Amino acid sequence: MASPAVDYARGNQQRFLNELKDLLRIPSISTLQEHKSDVQKAADFVATELRRIGLEHVETIPTKGHPLVYADWLHAPGKPTALCYAHYDVQPPDPLNEWISPPFDPTERNNNLYARGAVDDKGQLWMEIKAVEALTKGHNGTLPLNVKFIIEGEEEVGGESIAAYVRKEKAKLKADFALVCDTELFAHDLPTLCVGLRGLVYTEIEAVGAKTDLHSGMYGGAAPNPFFGLIEVISKLKDAKGKVLIPGFYKNVKAPSKDELKAWKRLPFNEGHYRKTEVGSSVLTGEPGYPVLYRTWARPTLEVHGMPGGFVAPGAKTVIPAKASAKVSMRLVPNQDPDDILKRYRNFVKKLTPKGIQTNIKVWSKGAACVVGTDNKYIKAATEALHDVFKKETVFIRSGGSIPIVTDFQDVLKIPSVMMGFGLPDDNLHAPNEKFHIPNFYRGIESICLFFEKLGQ
Amino acid sequence: MASPAVDYARGNQQRFLNELKDLLRIPSISTLQEHKSDVQKAADFVATELRRIGLEHVETIPTKGHPLVYADWLHAPGKPTALCYAHYDVQPPDPLNEWISPPFDPTERNNNLYARGAVDDKGQLWMEIKAVEALTKGHNGTLPLNVKFIIEGEEEVGGESIAAYVRKEKAKLKADFALVCDTELFAHDLPTLCVGLRGLVYTEIEAVGAKTDLHSGMYGGAAPNPFFGLIEVISKLKDAKGKVLIPGFYKNVKAPSKDELKAWKRLPFNEGHYRKTEVGSSVLTGEPGYPVLYRTWARPTLEVHGMPGGFVAPGAKTVIPAKASAKVSMRLVPNQDPDDILKRYRNFVKKLTPKGIQTNIKVWSKGAACVVGTDNKYIKAATEALHDVFKKETVFIRSGGSIPIVTDFQDVLKIPSVMMGFGLPDDNLHAPNEKFHIPNFYRGIESICLFFEKLGQ
Repeated sequence: MASPAVDYARGNQQRFLNELKDLLRIPSISTLQEHKSDVQKAADFVATELRRIGLEHVETIPTKGHPLVYADWLHAPGKPTALCYAHYDVQPPDPLNEWISPPFDPTERNNNLYARGAVDDKGQLWMEIKAVEALTKGHNGTLPLNVKFIIEGEEEVGGESIAAYVRKEKAKLKADFALVCDTELFAHDLPTLCVGLRGLVYTEIEAVGAKTDLHSGMYGGAAPNPFFGLIEVISKLKDAKGKVLIPGFYKNVKAPSKDELKAWKRLPFNEGHYRKTEVGSSVLTGEPGYPVLYRTWARPTLEVHGMPGGFVAPGAKTVIPAKASAKVSMRLVPNQDPDDILKRYRNFVKKLTPKGIQTNIKVWSKGAACVVGTDNKYIKAATEALHDVFKKETVFIRSGGSIPIVTDFQDVLKIPSVMMGFGLPDDNLHAPNEKFHIPNFYRGIESICLFFEKLGQ
Repeated sequence: MASPAVDYARGNQQRFLNELKDLLRIPSISTLQEHKSDVQKAADFVATELRRIGLEHVETIPTKGHPLVYADWLHAPGKPTALCYAHYDVQPPDPLNEWISPPFDPTERNNNLYARGAVDDKGQLWMEIKAVEALTKGHNGTLPLNVKFIIEGEEEVGGESIAAYVRKEKAKLKADFALVCDTELFAHDLPTLCVGLRGLVYTEIEAVGAKTDLHSGMYGGAAPNPFFGLIEVISKLKDAKGKVLIPGFYKNVKAPSKDELKAWKRLPFNEGHYRKTEVGSSVLTGEPGYPVLYRTWARPTLEVHGMPGGFVAPGAKTVIPAKASAKVSMRLVPNQDPDDILKRYRNFVKKLTPKGIQTNIKVWSKGAACVVGTDNKYIKAATEALHDVFKKETVFIRSGGSIPIVTDFQDVLKIPSVMMGFGLPDDNLHAPNEKFHIPNFYRGIESICLFFEKLGQ
């Protein structure tokens, strides 16, 4: 295939990469209040670039949380309209001491670019922007289709603002499909489209015992300990094999189709290799009777992410803390309703809370699972574009993660999403030494160029 | 009783209090590196005063941590030798905004002296020094018995240096008994000797699952979660009612004598008042069948103080951490052997550790319980002295806390300790608005004067 956009992209790879590094240097950690101005800075960086490459109506839209960035180019009458989505916020980098190079000092090693956000999602955001730039340059200042961008800065903290904005601005965001670049290839060199995501309910159980911190010598044996309250509750939320014990939790779970399950079995997946190189544990855990991909893509789970409170510095302090809490989340699958699950969870935690302890549940984020259809021209064009770049058939996978906005695009805007991502399973998302394999950055840009050119024909 | 020392002390109360205020103005917080020079300053202040009142061989002894202060006066041949112990270091004052007057600006209100360290332990240290001064003045420059002082600056941080020093300098510290002023009266106006302390084994269970932090979306359902490993283990270390489930844990527990238990029942203790005003919880916890004082003084307990690891900032981070740990301590009673308990605990934790998780136990501190006999002339003289001052019978209590040096005095120096303390249960030790009831400061000085005079007869 001859593509002037791809030619342009190939001639500008180094510049594209350098620009991405500039974006990666901004520590736009959306969950940490002290980085609020960095998040704004990253939004401005993105808006400035969208303006520079010729997009119109570029706006940095203030929200209750972090800003959204909107832009459009709508001069291709009769052609489809793409809504390009990505996010410019990143996860916190801790534990810092495990990073080989500093998280906000993007560093190349072995053809990989290491930095917090390299692949999740600044690198993939930059693929979208650079593909549009390349298309403009390759098409004499025009684009083969209409394009809208809606970029958010709260993906890592629940995405409340974009959810509200989508509901409020249906007409403005009207499009034929969404391009979502925030997923990964199933394996090296294997073109992949993600067609299903799990939902997420993320909570914090706050437990209170005594009115003040107490000396465990003086009061141990009489004063309630909120850590024990939490441990008693959480130990009963899930059994040792991974089955969630909240009554009715599995009631509405919809299993994948037989065809989908069959296709998953054909994927190049080696459980031993996965265990050893990706997870790195002595055994895998999870519900017996379900293969790994089934467990992580299509079964609901419950995890504890941290238990703030008490004494956590090195050494010993003999305190019975007055308060402690536990960050507990549940991944949901079709057709679990987040509100129904939350209600069942609240009731069960309340029932399990021992005497002497008060528990309260704070909800940090909440979203349903989503499965997108594969029988539409956007998925078809994407598949063809990926074939042109990778010379291989595309596989359809799900992800165990959650991209709540995809559910909103489907339910509120009534448009399908094409989840075209170029991360790799070992890219260390949300972990130290996050990276983006640089050839995949370039292949992502080329794939989007070809995808849009095909839709514009 | 006529006592020239008590007469002198009564005539110098205001000066004694003013000197104490000067000591309290030094923020000798042993756990905070930035206060290291203040800790040194407090040691020098103490040494200077010991020299001024006529003690000999006064030394400020450098250690790996904070200095020890030694002094002696050994010119009463044929008379007993007292080893006077106290500490000049204090706890951090936070949370600062809860102090009514600043923690290092000693302030009198309602006959109380408010300051960090007022009662724990600078005020009680100053009682010892002022009693010795009063005795010297009342006895024409001599003392009725031989006296050694060993004062430490690391009590609030584990007391490693004094433990090492006691082992190294057995001959130098040789004495007939120790006077330890770091405990409290059981109630207002109730003369009290503490005759038992619980031991402490303080550990950290370190749990490892995957080789790196993982995204709970991608890996939830397959990767082991060290928090769940810890929760599974800890939920089985103790039952919901407070019984420790480590096999053999209670095997060597020696119950208090019937007489001691009977005496405890006579103590003025109101469980409702204790729950409401001291603990401030909706119910008390602990082993059924044991009264509160029994549970907190003479039953072993197991507590969790903090669970470092994972994500603990406000907000949501969907991480399955590679590592997490739990600070778990056990309070021990006679005749539990810390090494035996530690071995049983290690074995049980290992047995409970689920597949996919590796646990390792770090020991932060370890010491046996200690009960001092009441049937010796030192306790007898102390009881008589307290009766002279308070006009009431002395009660013998235990403390649920640990003063490791008392165990060392008993096991290494082979001497009994007289734990004569003048704090009150509501003196806010380790908390904001720590205070010392000023009349108790004076009664402490007089009690020590009479105690030493009786032993010198």
